[in-house]
Amino acid sequence: MSEERSYPTGIGTSSEDTIELLGVDLAADVLGQVTFGELAYWLATKRLPTAGQLRVFEAVLASLADHGYTPTAIAARMTYYSAPDSIQGAIAAGLLGGGSRFLGVTEDTGQFLAEAVTGLGDVTGYGEGEWDDVARELVAAARAEGRKIPGLGHPVHKQGDPRTPVMFRIAREEGVFGAHLALFEAIGRVHAEVLGRQLPLNGAGVAGACLVDAGLPVGLLRGFALLARTAGLIGHLAEEQENPVGPSIYAEVDRHARYVPPADETPTD
Amino acid sequence: MSEERSYPTGIGTSSEDTIELLGVDLAADVLGQVTFGELAYWLATKRLPTAGQLRVFEAVLASLADHGYTPTAIAARMTYYSAPDSIQGAIAAGLLGGGSRFLGVTEDTGQFLAEAVTGLGDVTGYGEGEWDDVARELVAAARAEGRKIPGLGHPVHKQGDPRTPVMFRIAREEGVFGAHLALFEAIGRVHAEVLGRQLPLNGAGVAGACLVDAGLPVGLLRGFALLARTAGLIGHLAEEQENPVGPSIYAEVDRHARYVPPADETPTD
Amino acid sequence: MSEERSYPTGIGTSSEDTIELLGVDLAADVLGQVTFGELAYWLATKRLPTAGQLRVFEAVLASLADHGYTPTAIAARMTYYSAPDSIQGAIAAGLLGGGSRFLGVTEDTGQFLAEAVTGLGDVTGYGEGEWDDVARELVAAARAEGRKIPGLGHPVHKQGDPRTPVMFRIAREEGVFGAHLALFEAIGRVHAEVLGRQLPLNGAGVAGACLVDAGLPVGLLRGFALLARTAGLIGHLAEEQENPVGPSIYAEVDRHARYVPPADETPTD
Amino acid sequence: MSEERSYPTGIGTSSEDTIELLGVDLAADVLGQVTFGELAYWLATKRLPTAGQLRVFEAVLASLADHGYTPTAIAARMTYYSAPDSIQGAIAAGLLGGGSRFLGVTEDTGQFLAEAVTGLGDVTGYGEGEWDDVARELVAAARAEGRKIPGLGHPVHKQGDPRTPVMFRIAREEGVFGAHLALFEAIGRVHAEVLGRQLPLNGAGVAGACLVDAGLPVGLLRGFALLARTAGLIGHLAEEQENPVGPSIYAEVDRHARYVPPADETPTD
Repeated sequence: MSEERSYPTGIGTSSEDTIELLGVDLAADVLGQVTFGELAYWLATKRLPTAGQLRVFEAVLASLADHGYTPTAIAARMTYYSAPDSIQGAIAAGLLGGGSRFLGVTEDTGQFLAEAVTGLGDVTGYGEGEWDDVARELVAAARAEGRKIPGLGHPVHKQGDPRTPVMFRIAREEGVFGAHLALFEAIGRVHAEVLGRQLPLNGAGVAGACLVDAGLPVGLLRGFALLARTAGLIGHLAEEQENPVGPSIYAEVDRHARYVPPADETPTD
Repeated sequence: MSEERSYPTGIGTSSEDTIELLGVDLAADVLGQVTFGELAYWLATKRLPTAGQLRVFEAVLASLADHGYTPTAIAARMTYYSAPDSIQGAIAAGLLGGGSRFLGVTEDTGQFLAEAVTGLGDVTGYGEGEWDDVARELVAAARAEGRKIPGLGHPVHKQGDPRTPVMFRIAREEGVFGAHLALFEAIGRVHAEVLGRQLPLNGAGVAGACLVDAGLPVGLLRGFALLARTAGLIGHLAEEQENPVGPSIYAEVDRHARYVPPADETPTD
Repeated sequence: MSEERSYPTGIGTSSEDTIELLGVDLAADVLGQVTFGELAYWLATKRLPTAGQLRVFEAVLASLADHGYTPTAIAARMTYYSAPDSIQGAIAAGLLGGGSRFLGVTEDTGQFLAEAVTGLGDVTGYGEGEWDDVARELVAAARAEGRKIPGLGHPVHKQGDPRTPVMFRIAREEGVFGAHLALFEAIGRVHAEVLGRQLPLNGAGVAGACLVDAGLPVGLLRGFALLARTAGLIGHLAEEQENPVGPSIYAEVDRHARYVPPADETPTD
Repeated sequence: MSEERSYPTGIGTSSEDTIELLGVDLAADVLGQVTFGELAYWLATKRLPTAGQLRVFEAVLASLADHGYTPTAIAARMTYYSAPDSIQGAIAAGLLGGGSRFLGVTEDTGQFLAEAVTGLGDVTGYGEGEWDDVARELVAAARAEGRKIPGLGHPVHKQGDPRTPVMFRIAREEGVFGAHLALFEAIGRVHAEVLGRQLPLNGAGVAGACLVDAGLPVGLLRGFALLARTAGLIGHLAEEQENPVGPSIYAEVDRHARYVPPADETPTD
């Protein structure tokens, strides 16, 4: 009975002679024939992407790979400085910043759009007008509840995130522009009517919309941001090996530490 | 003086209107035009790969992306089960197993070969005979000191790792077969003379040799194994979301726990 | 102007001659004079605990330190097996499971109670009757919204978690039994009236209530569960060094892997 | 046959009615009766410490808990800033810096001393003279091989680490001053004869010697540094919740980023 236990997986198996990945022969059918982006898509979905889905997916990964000295890059560099024997630790430390604030917008936007689209039922034949109506309602509802629309606004690119129009164009070129991008674009058109000011659709948000329209699972969007970021973190660690800034950041913070005594308070008991 | 502080980087910068990555305009020159593999190579080396380097690099990433239920995959699935709210934590936990035992062979082999090749000086004109001589000396030296040759031997693929000949072929097709692959191949030819038994050149080892010959930095080889593994871990987490095995693994271990008192007096087994 | 930058902290500073921790001389006033539990409390709150607060705090830490082969312990052991060169990676992997499912109850319960208590205003003079009324309302509200009451119920200890009455007793003995424990205890008394079945107050939940009544910050309760668990993980790694189970768990899962092809579906485009 | 599988552990087990930890009843015999330091010692060694061992152990933990704005504290704060929803990620990121450079000295020193002491055989009756002879030999051997003596030297406390004499005193008071501390102290007396300059015995090193003499396992010394540091990191995160410096550190680094083109032709600095 308990002998029948088994752990199902569709990813990898191997015997003495062969290694299978995703049900095909790794050596014969994968190596040299599938790009890394294709493989990442395949592993996540169990389907090979179309050429269009792949181009959009890889554009998304490129758009998320690195944003300079983000907190995650700083954390990775600090960790490498402190434990240079463990590159995995430095990358892991960098990825651990991939939460709500800096890397979560992609996921939040994709989930927000997916929920809205799912609620609509059949959207065949929707044109800009219909999407604008949906968007107006969403923005108004969010405003009424004091929620922000994910993917809207950017602290630096206030007049428009340069990635956004390019991602829309690529998705259109590749026939991957679906309901989620259409709705996101509509949010870009109509939100000012409701909110009273014009905000940019940011690149992390459009990345989320693209991933969903390109067929990636909504529950894993943060994972792709992390995959992209892993490549960026390797770039930061390569620099840290060549021309480190870790010691300078440490020195900067340590030397400018200022001791602050605890807030004067009466004993708590 | 301290005002002159600055943190140099060649990766990313942005202004209100533009985002630059690696010195070019991200939106205009990267998105939709560079594959993710190309970008990862570029970030690590500050050079775009040749078509041949890229194909070898992506074949290496594919060969390392997943090996089924490795300890790292199990750690990631356990962590996801325990903290499903933090995908970054599950991926980080998986990568943290990327150390000496399971993911370190790629790095160890690449470093071992790079050190040997560097010690040779000019190897132009080396043919199989010369490489065999070098390999014999290395294997004999390792044997004399009781060290293992990294990349040699495999617990499962005892008659030959199916990835190895394919990787050699791809590197040759692409003109990327250089000194490190030549030396690794020579080790495969001559080690039995010295050690008295035939061992396979394993796939993790050939991956290390390929990465060095494809121009990737020797100090970061483990990083590429981790990048590849990130894609594999996303595949595991996608399965865990659909059809989890985490609860079964936990139940299996928990139910078969056996309490063993401390070994104050008698041995524990 | 930017020269005035500074990074305030009340934790540690040092000069060539002295090291200060929390505003006192580490060597003269801390070493050998403060227990580790006391120090952990002090670091988190900037106050030394009273003797009663300390005893409750240390009882909580003991109650959370280890629960056998939890997913977090398995993740740590897998990671150690895979990367034995990096103990920090194994501990970090174990802690990363400290999320919503296995280690989050302490925090969730503490926050739930704190929110409820804060909403009550002055609770001086509340007796069991008043707390029962509050508890009835909370349980009814949670039921109406389909939410669970955190800290209520346990998959194994269905007739009562053995830790719970002991923690209540210790808190009473030490005069640390405050509003949060009183409300939690009341939930234990009245929930069956509302829910129609009797559930145990679990040990993780009572830990959360204790921490708040012992003066620890509500926003950091998960941190104390993680501190406790670090001690437990060190115990697991000590065992893994002496008498490892990592290889057995890996073998168990790997050997009972069962390949499952992707759900048969038509192409998505 | 495979039915006989079992996963031995001496840490925790539970049934519906009881929870056992280390072979005793958690509720009856641990909660409220064992301090957290005692429990951590017990979990790591399966033995309760003597009062003296415990005081030395807790003094070591206090000495390692925090050193201000170390790279690990900065990494934890950056990660918290970026992913405030995941305290476990911030603590894990902080611990991942616990590698060779900043937290490894304790382990390195303990292992160095343990290896030397083990090599001596019976050291009963050794006095200062004998230890000085051993120390001279070790320092001379290290010097001849170009190795550093771990635990010797400090970048800030050049005239003496204030923790060191206090730790020696406490260990003596508690009767825990054994071979490892004796040898470490001897290194402090004689190294200048061999090296030609006086260096301080640092606090991380004396911590390693203390841990071994207090009966903790040599293979886990880094683990205790990590346990101590977890308490320190909780202190940093408590401050980050109250009065964050994460945004300032990020702004400092981001604003002073300086783009450096790849060094194809000209040096990068």
